[in-house]
Amino acid sequence: MRSRLARYLPCLQWGATYDRHAASRDSLAAVIVTLMLIPQSLAYAMLAGLPAINGLYASILPLVAYTLFGTSRTLSVGPVAVISLMTAAVLGPLFVAGSAEYAGAALVLALLSGVLLLAMALLRLGFLANFLSHPVISGFISASAILIALSQLRHILGIEAQGDNAVMLLLRLQQELPQTHLPTLAIGTASLLFIYLTRCHLGRWLGAPPRLADSIGKIGPIIALLGSILLVSALELGAAGVKVVGIVPQGLPTISLPELDLALLRQLLPAALLISLVGFVESVSVGQTLASRHRERIDPNQELVALGNANIAAALSGGMPVTGGFSRSVVNYDAGAKTPMAGALAAVGIAITALYFTPLLHDLPHAVLAAIIIVAVLSLVDIGALGRTWRYSRQDGAAMAVSMLGVLLIGVEAGILLGAGLSLLLFLWRTSQPHIAVVGQVPGSEHFRNVERYAVAESSKVLSVRVDESLYFPNARFLEDRIAKLVGQHPAAEHLVLMCPGINLIDASALESLETISERLRTAGIQLHLSEVKGPVMDKLRRSDFLRDFGGQVFLSQFDALKALDPETTRKALAGAHPSSPAHGEG
Amino acid sequence: MRSRLARYLPCLQWGATYDRHAASRDSLAAVIVTLMLIPQSLAYAMLAGLPAINGLYASILPLVAYTLFGTSRTLSVGPVAVISLMTAAVLGPLFVAGSAEYAGAALVLALLSGVLLLAMALLRLGFLANFLSHPVISGFISASAILIALSQLRHILGIEAQGDNAVMLLLRLQQELPQTHLPTLAIGTASLLFIYLTRCHLGRWLGAPPRLADSIGKIGPIIALLGSILLVSALELGAAGVKVVGIVPQGLPTISLPELDLALLRQLLPAALLISLVGFVESVSVGQTLASRHRERIDPNQELVALGNANIAAALSGGMPVTGGFSRSVVNYDAGAKTPMAGALAAVGIAITALYFTPLLHDLPHAVLAAIIIVAVLSLVDIGALGRTWRYSRQDGAAMAVSMLGVLLIGVEAGILLGAGLSLLLFLWRTSQPHIAVVGQVPGSEHFRNVERYAVAESSKVLSVRVDESLYFPNARFLEDRIAKLVGQHPAAEHLVLMCPGINLIDASALESLETISERLRTAGIQLHLSEVKGPVMDKLRRSDFLRDFGGQVFLSQFDALKALDPETTRKALAGAHPSSPAHGEG
Repeated sequence: MRSRLARYLPCLQWGATYDRHAASRDSLAAVIVTLMLIPQSLAYAMLAGLPAINGLYASILPLVAYTLFGTSRTLSVGPVAVISLMTAAVLGPLFVAGSAEYAGAALVLALLSGVLLLAMALLRLGFLANFLSHPVISGFISASAILIALSQLRHILGIEAQGDNAVMLLLRLQQELPQTHLPTLAIGTASLLFIYLTRCHLGRWLGAPPRLADSIGKIGPIIALLGSILLVSALELGAAGVKVVGIVPQGLPTISLPELDLALLRQLLPAALLISLVGFVESVSVGQTLASRHRERIDPNQELVALGNANIAAALSGGMPVTGGFSRSVVNYDAGAKTPMAGALAAVGIAITALYFTPLLHDLPHAVLAAIIIVAVLSLVDIGALGRTWRYSRQDGAAMAVSMLGVLLIGVEAGILLGAGLSLLLFLWRTSQPHIAVVGQVPGSEHFRNVERYAVAESSKVLSVRVDESLYFPNARFLEDRIAKLVGQHPAAEHLVLMCPGINLIDASALESLETISERLRTAGIQLHLSEVKGPVMDKLRRSDFLRDFGGQVFLSQFDALKALDPETTRKALAGAHPSSPAHGEG
Repeated sequence: MRSRLARYLPCLQWGATYDRHAASRDSLAAVIVTLMLIPQSLAYAMLAGLPAINGLYASILPLVAYTLFGTSRTLSVGPVAVISLMTAAVLGPLFVAGSAEYAGAALVLALLSGVLLLAMALLRLGFLANFLSHPVISGFISASAILIALSQLRHILGIEAQGDNAVMLLLRLQQELPQTHLPTLAIGTASLLFIYLTRCHLGRWLGAPPRLADSIGKIGPIIALLGSILLVSALELGAAGVKVVGIVPQGLPTISLPELDLALLRQLLPAALLISLVGFVESVSVGQTLASRHRERIDPNQELVALGNANIAAALSGGMPVTGGFSRSVVNYDAGAKTPMAGALAAVGIAITALYFTPLLHDLPHAVLAAIIIVAVLSLVDIGALGRTWRYSRQDGAAMAVSMLGVLLIGVEAGILLGAGLSLLLFLWRTSQPHIAVVGQVPGSEHFRNVERYAVAESSKVLSVRVDESLYFPNARFLEDRIAKLVGQHPAAEHLVLMCPGINLIDASALESLETISERLRTAGIQLHLSEVKGPVMDKLRRSDFLRDFGGQVFLSQFDALKALDPETTRKALAGAHPSSPAHGEG
């Protein structure tokens, strides 16, 4: 009973052995993650076009939900850059950023994402995420990072310049460049430099051991945040035109269901599906990488449940769409987190911030948040991957290039849809054309090999065809067509033996194709036979009428088939007689 | 030059050797097909909710287009039942049947279908039709036939009873049954009986040889048609309430582009795509079956061109969507058609009908057309296929049942979309989980087999894993997950050898997964190796950084790998030492 429950509530498992040692390690990690999460959640809320408080709220209950349901010990859930960008891209065209409708729709989006993730868990549809291929995701992330960095330049420059894609953004930035606000630019540039340099060097400057050094580097943003607040309020730069966060409500989120409008739900559904899939893929790959360092593993299906509940928690508590973030999770791991409790403790840190420190955030400049975002996302850009992928495989390179160009030239949604669509199309095309070879007997042996690669003996009476793939509907008709073509090329054939060692499955479509093929061959005066059919495939064939109706034999081996159907040629070949035609090649 | 042109205009090929013998055979077939096509084209136009003349027009220029571009010698193009039903299902909710807008939209649908078919030919996307699996198509056709028969009962009964699905139709029929018009019912029932009986027996009664007898049976409808016209006009049954075709314009179609409205085009696009795919699948399978009787084959890509042009011709000449029909093509073949010229000659027959005989059609009762449709479609119903398919494969049976239920309970479009969606989903699910086995050494040999099927020697230091499928993005992450699981189950492992004889391809996603796996294994203290990598796969891997970075070796065989990594266990096993654990089974 308890172990069954623990499958659905993994916290029961690790919670049973939770001790003081784990608690002290988790607490330390939680402090570092909280210091990193405060500026990130404020920044990603701004990126998503939402009030700062939504970012903080999205970093409280969702973390608790993940602690209860998640299977990764170190994954840090909360707002992340790419999902925030996708949120802004969906809601931007529908509502005015900053309006109550916009914020409400963001909650609906989180709710839909959560419900979709739970539905995928229930229907075991997590495998659908596999169809976002690595090159597509990688191209999408790189291009999104560039788009995010470009979109934040306006905050560094203190101007207005928005747009859905890179071209529009660059045009607007160029137009508005003369309006640059110099105090804002100074703060922005200084923050960029400070955050970049501390990220790389702070830990080393402080003489920390290498692994902790990286984690310490990640708290540069909160130092920049506090420093800039002091600077702005001391010099009253807010009044001088430096855009600041402004009033952030104090206190914990209240729980309420977002306003549900059927038309809006329908409108947001496709975007919610994309956000769910992208978030899931990213989160699972981070979680799996970290888990494997201890020979542990995460359960992808339970991760769907955990991320689904985290998003529903975000929707109910005034947050925004969340998922597992890469950099925070690595910091959490490096800082020594032992269990998911570290996440819940970080949530306590954020809750304390929301309760007591939000008035401090009034003077936080947008430029500093933009600098935090830019430094964070630029580490995600990997343009070189395009060259590597293209060199390795043209098809994958094309899918990656299409994703990147789609994101940069049209927008995030178009990019991932075009990339995923192209890679699925290329996959379907490839799978619908399996390798089919005409085979002949290797002289002096009972082996049969491809006539195009080996010097083998072919019987003129018996056409031997080997299929190197399971037979199912995507390739069933291809087989019909290829056999029709081969029969046209072998006018003297009286028998056709289909050699089946590579066939692990024959589905109903392929069975019908086999019946059609056998029927068509018969009207053309050719008898179909099978050879080397695997046990499970044979069991299934016995449940159909095919074996009774097709009129041919099922031979144990291709050699047996040829021995029975064309004994003379087979005998000669076995004696080592080489065919008159030379080999076409070897391989 | 000429041969290149002949690839795009196959008529140049057969036309070059066209002689009097072929002409006389084609003419005889054309006469029989014309006599069959006249009632069918009138009936299918009624089924599609269009004026009778659209059916005739759709049987003139489209046939000529197919004669010029088609690769099947005996395929008979024109209106067919299922496509007509789909047309009615799309247009019914949008326009009033019989209105000019309705007829105009039918032309737009034909135009869109034609353009889509040509685009598929150009982009070589014909393989997409493979993804309508046999069970889905078969279930769809059976259920559509039932739906068509039910929808025509109202004409037999002389009442009004329309609906999108079987439930709605049955309810309406029950409601309206008391309004049954007895003279109409008498004509309808008599026609049904007459057409059914002549179809089965007429040829034999006339003492024709069996093959011709079938074809003669198919001209029963035109006899019923002429007989009923005589009866209705003699007894003035039109005035007595028997619904008749009414005025049919006389003369040949004029050529004009249908009115194009962007909103309408967008609205009809999804339906046009479905109609194109279903029409293409049906037509190609008929064409291929007939071609194979002479060891000939048709070219599916050129068929896309031919059907595309046929539909465009239909759109330009006031017709309706067309494709190759099953029963007419068989009659055409049995009646001795030698070349596609038979189709053009049938078009002449229909043109003569449109020019001179349309006034005769005024008194043709709807009930007779309905009887023609019912007898024609009931031969398409194959309910037994559901049981056969289910017995053979649960998954295929489920896809078939969903198509059928979808069509009957919701409507034609929903049915095929649900069925195709489910079978694609099941396919993707299956393909995303390849067979992965832990293997061990067969005692006394150098062979490695599945530890769950054979009593083999396993090394505790070296984990041997065989993957029986190419590695690409649908299964790349599955591999990551399975390896993580296996490593968790083998805590003592220091090496993992991936045995690759079944891997024909490693795409960029799978390459990245391999890199991830190797990286994760390394952090867990395990070294990855490969064995039995095929030549082409190895060539590709050499173009990446994987072989340099992964730190392991690529062994020629699994035996070599074990000999190098765990010599003692390997030596013992080779000497025939049986493992302590018994075999789990054989197979």
